[in-house]
Amino acid sequence: MESLGHVKPQSLRFEQPLPLKSGAQLPSYELVYETYGRLNADKSNAVLVCHALNASHHLAGTYEGQDKSEGWWDNLIGPGKPLDTDKFFVIGVNNLGSCFGSTGPMHSNPVTGRIYGADFPVVTVQDWVDAQARLLDHLGIGQLAAVLGGSLGGMQALDWSLRYADRLRHCIAIATAPNLSAQNIAFNEVARRAIITDPDFHGGHFYEHGVVPKRGLRVARMIGHITYLSDDVMEQKFGRELRATELGYSTQDIEFQIESYLRYQGDKFSDYFDANTYLLITRALDYFDPALEHGGDLSRTFASARCKYLLASFTTDWRFAPARSREIVKALLDNKLDVSYAEIDAPHGHDAFLLEDPRYHGVLRAYFKRIAGELT
Amino acid sequence: MESLGHVKPQSLRFEQPLPLKSGAQLPSYELVYETYGRLNADKSNAVLVCHALNASHHLAGTYEGQDKSEGWWDNLIGPGKPLDTDKFFVIGVNNLGSCFGSTGPMHSNPVTGRIYGADFPVVTVQDWVDAQARLLDHLGIGQLAAVLGGSLGGMQALDWSLRYADRLRHCIAIATAPNLSAQNIAFNEVARRAIITDPDFHGGHFYEHGVVPKRGLRVARMIGHITYLSDDVMEQKFGRELRATELGYSTQDIEFQIESYLRYQGDKFSDYFDANTYLLITRALDYFDPALEHGGDLSRTFASARCKYLLASFTTDWRFAPARSREIVKALLDNKLDVSYAEIDAPHGHDAFLLEDPRYHGVLRAYFKRIAGELT
Repeated sequence: MESLGHVKPQSLRFEQPLPLKSGAQLPSYELVYETYGRLNADKSNAVLVCHALNASHHLAGTYEGQDKSEGWWDNLIGPGKPLDTDKFFVIGVNNLGSCFGSTGPMHSNPVTGRIYGADFPVVTVQDWVDAQARLLDHLGIGQLAAVLGGSLGGMQALDWSLRYADRLRHCIAIATAPNLSAQNIAFNEVARRAIITDPDFHGGHFYEHGVVPKRGLRVARMIGHITYLSDDVMEQKFGRELRATELGYSTQDIEFQIESYLRYQGDKFSDYFDANTYLLITRALDYFDPALEHGGDLSRTFASARCKYLLASFTTDWRFAPARSREIVKALLDNKLDVSYAEIDAPHGHDAFLLEDPRYHGVLRAYFKRIAGELT
Repeated sequence: MESLGHVKPQSLRFEQPLPLKSGAQLPSYELVYETYGRLNADKSNAVLVCHALNASHHLAGTYEGQDKSEGWWDNLIGPGKPLDTDKFFVIGVNNLGSCFGSTGPMHSNPVTGRIYGADFPVVTVQDWVDAQARLLDHLGIGQLAAVLGGSLGGMQALDWSLRYADRLRHCIAIATAPNLSAQNIAFNEVARRAIITDPDFHGGHFYEHGVVPKRGLRVARMIGHITYLSDDVMEQKFGRELRATELGYSTQDIEFQIESYLRYQGDKFSDYFDANTYLLITRALDYFDPALEHGGDLSRTFASARCKYLLASFTTDWRFAPARSREIVKALLDNKLDVSYAEIDAPHGHDAFLLEDPRYHGVLRAYFKRIAGELT
């Protein structure tokens, strides 16, 4: 299978304010996006791919002159790949509040002229989906062949199917949940506290101080990483392996390889990720709970849905365990909707949705083939 | 069942240096301990209770004039309680490196005259057990009826049975493991990084600066708390319950009750716990791995053991899951040792070992009755 080769991001400015779920509004904003493949004549082959916490519009392909610039879902998307860009027109959009191009806390507030920082309005999954819908309006796409997403991206796919029921034919939600559990929120909250209590955070206005709350970002990322991996895969990859041949008996130096790995991940992350974006995106996760407006009844929630669904989960994912996907499947079946569900026995925990597991990719390949078969 | 009533800690100073596993030594030190019940004539009814991370020698009873000063295992230990102080002489010792009385990083280094801080030598489970053995020498107790501990305390009980095989008749190890998994170490490491990277930590010499790395301690405790509780019990106790009646749409304010609970636990902990102690104790956990000297073979490790064992684990404990206890049980059975094992279906996660679950306490009561029956 070939890669997409070089791709280029595009950008679109919206001057019409975006009303947000919180009651606030974003006066004007920019969305950065990428598209791959060609939109067919009746504009029926578009697939929107929604991103999770630490990702962007750059789904696949590489940037010219940039080494190691493969998109985050390059193993899935490209010519001949499971989401085949020879058949589909694939769209990746960077969400509002992100730090990868679309309007976010690092940008200037047009009302005050100051960098938003912590004043960037709190955005939700619904707000993101509304902004994505406006982008599709601009691209002239009335109905998507599918919306695809994993984790937080899966929540966006579910929201599309609930609030824009006529604008998609298939919803593909991987390793996701109908809402966060108390434990999920707890991990997010610890990560946020680490960032907010870092003295370099300055209440979210650190840009003006010329510093970055790297300590907090590092800790947040380390916590995240533990929850992305399964206990098993950590044991397999690292176990109790030491970095040196003998113990050094130190509380501050690295003794075990797992420590070295986590610190490296934390350092790398703190070099490029924005602290306010981290807060915003984890909050969007916390808030997502479509059943809330239906008395907590997930079956009633999906009564308005009309598209077909594919859900997939991974046996060792303890962040969004298979049981959470099964809750959604049950609610869909209660509404007699067309739903396929794959529970994939993979060792990699939550991270599995990003990896090239043959059974997992086999399921996606088959499902996209079905969708392609429905195209005229 | 009555409480023990008022109890008093005692203290003993040791001038003979303690050689440590790291190769260093502790020149002189003090151990704080408590005893309840009466040592019988042939000194055969002594039970040593070892503590875990956030606990001390104060197992049971209260301190005169101090409200809410119940010992941490008061539900288990006292007259007529499962560990019956009418029958047993119960000893609690505060471990070296702790911040509750025994010599630790908050004390003065007799060699330099400065507060130890981060220079307090790294202590291991084995060092603690060696120090406990010296205390028993002083008390004239040659052989213990039992050593009991949960979590890190269970590791000490196991170590007693391996390295002081003739000095105990029963080893009771609850909710413990033969060593930490990569995931366990990972959580410890994140907590340590939160503390060490707190600017108020000052390389572990914060005492001289008149500050306390409270931010780091808070985050460390919050992480700890998540791993002590089961996903289920968090869901039951907090779920997605909001603190206010409506969402406030804020990344920094509390929205969910679970956030409020975690912040409260973190704040409380940071008011009294010592940062260097936290590093030392989590490292002692990381290092514990008795099989290491036996090529990783746990069965060979227990070849030297001679006492009888009770192990117990809790179904929802994901920190030290039942599978980890079963590894120990298997190794004991491989050596044809007398072992009882209870896997208790309790919803509370790792914390269950501290709680008064009737099935759990029933098992302990029956086992201590058996031990009492062996007394002459």
